[in-house]
Amino acid sequence: MENYVHGYTETEARRLQDQAVTLAGLLHRDVRFPAGSRILEAGCGTGSQTVLLARNNPDSRFVSIDVSPSSLLQAEEAVGAAGLTNVRFEQADIFSLPFAEETFDQVFVCFVLEHLADPAAALRCLRRVLRKGGDITVVEGDHGSFYCHPETPAARRTVDCLVEIQAGLGGNALIGRQLDPLLLAGGFSRPKVTPRLV
Amino acid sequence: MENYVHGYTETEARRLQDQAVTLAGLLHRDVRFPAGSRILEAGCGTGSQTVLLARNNPDSRFVSIDVSPSSLLQAEEAVGAAGLTNVRFEQADIFSLPFAEETFDQVFVCFVLEHLADPAAALRCLRRVLRKGGDITVVEGDHGSFYCHPETPAARRTVDCLVEIQAGLGGNALIGRQLDPLLLAGGFSRPKVTPRLV
Repeated sequence: MENYVHGYTETEARRLQDQAVTLAGLLHRDVRFPAGSRILEAGCGTGSQTVLLARNNPDSRFVSIDVSPSSLLQAEEAVGAAGLTNVRFEQADIFSLPFAEETFDQVFVCFVLEHLADPAAALRCLRRVLRKGGDITVVEGDHGSFYCHPETPAARRTVDCLVEIQAGLGGNALIGRQLDPLLLAGGFSRPKVTPRLV
Repeated sequence: MENYVHGYTETEARRLQDQAVTLAGLLHRDVRFPAGSRILEAGCGTGSQTVLLARNNPDSRFVSIDVSPSSLLQAEEAVGAAGLTNVRFEQADIFSLPFAEETFDQVFVCFVLEHLADPAAALRCLRRVLRKGGDITVVEGDHGSFYCHPETPAARRTVDCLVEIQAGLGGNALIGRQLDPLLLAGGFSRPKVTPRLV
């Protein structure tokens, strides 16, 4: 993903890993799939969420995709190091998924839509490969909901900068609040949004 | 309380009641006191929270105070209508509590500190009547954390107005984020703050 706002550095890979561990309880506490599910993880990056998903759902099989071959290599290594064998990695683009219609029982997307210029189109692409009656789980942030005390101009500027730069790259750091209309625009009915506080 | 930003109208009493019911799960799910506890509810207003507290903790005895005699009458009526008999109401000011030191095992304050010019002083007054080792439960909002989509100038202005007017009256609609330092300033050690999203 050329416009990934945080860049492809080792520091960023470590940040993603720290973030995944810190937020594991918050984000994954209710992400449990029925045994035997075939699950697409779209935009797995360096595999920080993949490890949690695969560990928490040992009786499901995951296909985890990403556009970045180097991220996939790191993801593969992380999953291997965790001793997990229920994940297959594949290099693929969300907008041209190499899967037949209704291939998957579940789709999982975490911190991905915020980086895409047309997240609703991405959701439609994901919906195509999801079987009828299957569920999509979408996890996204909303940096506009950040606040602190005491608030300094520097703290405020730091967050505003991220929001602006991500917007400049075609992304949207304020996507959290838009998930309901986005899922509807993506063709999903009855979205259930549960805001969580970090 | 002369500077109660929402005023003392029938509409406001109804709003408080609606709010209490809507937020009951969010605010009261973990507010359970040991059987036999003597609990001070400070600033009970029209009793919306009192009914929930007394119902959820039938083996505790509550003393619920407020500065407004007319609010207390409504609170008394609400508790009576709910068939609850474990609450005694008393007209009193948080800043001159008519109780001996260490009278209570627990103190509960909900949506009160935000209206006070010196919330740390109020906490110190409450701490005086709390026995050593007793706990205080403080529930406050933070209107600065409001956001919506799509955001209209009118929606933003509405929330900003509330924040400004409350500040003009000596209160603080952004108090939520300050609870940790406030509790420390009030003499309480090891505050545990659990932000919850409405």
